[in-house]
Amino acid sequence: MVWAEIYAQTDPLPSWNEGAAKKSILDYVQAVTQEGNSDYLPVEDRIATFDQDGTLLVEKPSSVEMYYMFERLRLLAPQHPEWKNLKIVQEILAGDYSEVDLRTYLEMLAVTHSGMSVKAFHEMAQDWLKTAIHPRYKRPFKDLVYQPMLEVIQLFRDHGFKVYIVSGGGQEFMRNYTQQFYQIPLERILGTVLKVAYEYRDGNPILWMLPEILYVNDGPGKVEGLNLFIDKKPAAAFGNSTGDRQMLEWTQSAPGKRFELLVHHDDAEREYAYGPEAKSGTFSVDLMEEAKKRGWVVVSMKNDWKIMFPWEKEKVQGH
Amino acid sequence: MVWAEIYAQTDPLPSWNEGAAKKSILDYVQAVTQEGNSDYLPVEDRIATFDQDGTLLVEKPSSVEMYYMFERLRLLAPQHPEWKNLKIVQEILAGDYSEVDLRTYLEMLAVTHSGMSVKAFHEMAQDWLKTAIHPRYKRPFKDLVYQPMLEVIQLFRDHGFKVYIVSGGGQEFMRNYTQQFYQIPLERILGTVLKVAYEYRDGNPILWMLPEILYVNDGPGKVEGLNLFIDKKPAAAFGNSTGDRQMLEWTQSAPGKRFELLVHHDDAEREYAYGPEAKSGTFSVDLMEEAKKRGWVVVSMKNDWKIMFPWEKEKVQGH
Repeated sequence: MVWAEIYAQTDPLPSWNEGAAKKSILDYVQAVTQEGNSDYLPVEDRIATFDQDGTLLVEKPSSVEMYYMFERLRLLAPQHPEWKNLKIVQEILAGDYSEVDLRTYLEMLAVTHSGMSVKAFHEMAQDWLKTAIHPRYKRPFKDLVYQPMLEVIQLFRDHGFKVYIVSGGGQEFMRNYTQQFYQIPLERILGTVLKVAYEYRDGNPILWMLPEILYVNDGPGKVEGLNLFIDKKPAAAFGNSTGDRQMLEWTQSAPGKRFELLVHHDDAEREYAYGPEAKSGTFSVDLMEEAKKRGWVVVSMKNDWKIMFPWEKEKVQGH
Repeated sequence: MVWAEIYAQTDPLPSWNEGAAKKSILDYVQAVTQEGNSDYLPVEDRIATFDQDGTLLVEKPSSVEMYYMFERLRLLAPQHPEWKNLKIVQEILAGDYSEVDLRTYLEMLAVTHSGMSVKAFHEMAQDWLKTAIHPRYKRPFKDLVYQPMLEVIQLFRDHGFKVYIVSGGGQEFMRNYTQQFYQIPLERILGTVLKVAYEYRDGNPILWMLPEILYVNDGPGKVEGLNLFIDKKPAAAFGNSTGDRQMLEWTQSAPGKRFELLVHHDDAEREYAYGPEAKSGTFSVDLMEEAKKRGWVVVSMKNDWKIMFPWEKEKVQGH
């Protein structure tokens, strides 16, 4: 049976509208996994890397991690009278966190993710996740994963790919939900890393989280972090922002057939619109130009996706 | 068929003499992998971590990485007239490298592993490995892996364990030979990490190795590095020096049946002797006391191992 016939029977991407983006994904997987093809990739080279926020999961108005940090900041504020003089903290506590830049993000990460053991941190974050609700969708964050991207992950996995998340978010925080959200094992979650210290408490060893960044896994850091973990260029890379640019360039620079894709947030009605049109978003005009020049696939959420979220699955055939 | 009968037919550890050490290894694997046992470990918790130098591979008079660094230092010396004033470099160039402490090691690592792309570094190291010979055994370093430990790795692997190397050595350097020496995939090799930088050369992205340590994967750093990669306590840990102490403590601190083992170098005739008796070795008197107190298995290379190296396999039955 040939590929087209198999897909005529069971569409692995039922939440995608027919079009160039969907076709490019199916064509790529077929090209590199059917034995005998000139573009065939051996299993050990089948590595697919996915950015998280905005690529797999809603990141507006703030990412799940940011909501966690805001709540932690509120809880910690009474113990930190010195924060009264910090404009950024006061803005965040007042609910105005539209202008969190990288430096502020890293400071917040250091403050809110430290001063406890790794174990205590996980318990605290998992407790929070059980009841945290997205302000617009009024649903837990696990429901805000993009169904079309879950199908892409499954398609790649079904064809022998190792799937990694390569995110600028805190690695230790992501470990609390990535298995549940995407069925990706913890050792394939790469993110920004805080220093930890091996210490003894009451004679027992613990890992203590320090308020210091070991490295930032964003932009060029995504490639540097990948090299730390896997020492191979990905075969396919998926992102949605300038922070993913280097990961996609790195992927494309490898010999053999590679695949690069950017998710374009252009659907304010069903989700959010902050692509190059917005001028202020993380998907810059420059990035769109680079995508065109290099032949990266750009997915229009508005046109390419039939549905956004898992809870809408009943609306489409094939589930 | 019961376990004892299976092993009566094919001994998975033919290079080990019968005794308490061998029995403890076989008993552990049986206890945690036979379904129905009270100590049964699910497959996802079967993680075994091995130190490298002195645990899997001869590290005297210097480790394979040190020999590489010495040669690099010799080659680089003419371009660094300022080294003429550095006593340690002059001693090393004169062949006297008995006193390389951690700080000196890290400085050497930074100098000899940087100033080139990751790709160029790998090519250079692999070229060197093709012809490098151990001064005592007059053999390539791949022959200096301990055959009894290769059998332990295989035994654990055959029982569903993921096997990691967790070494103080340079991670990027180890990647050049660990697959060949131990059949352990590159993404399971943890070591001391140098910073790399994502850069462009002639419009193409490269990773450039910087003369800066990101973190030291030794002692407490072995546990901190493990947390970065796998977020789980190992089920079993193997070492031979004070640099492995924390990894073994961490392993033992997990709930359920765990296994800790130290290789004791007490065989100057067939290999080297630098255990607690030597007073100056990396296996300190304190470490031996801790091992006794905590019930860690201590392997006598002299008494527990029938043979040391793969080339001696014909001397023992069962291969």
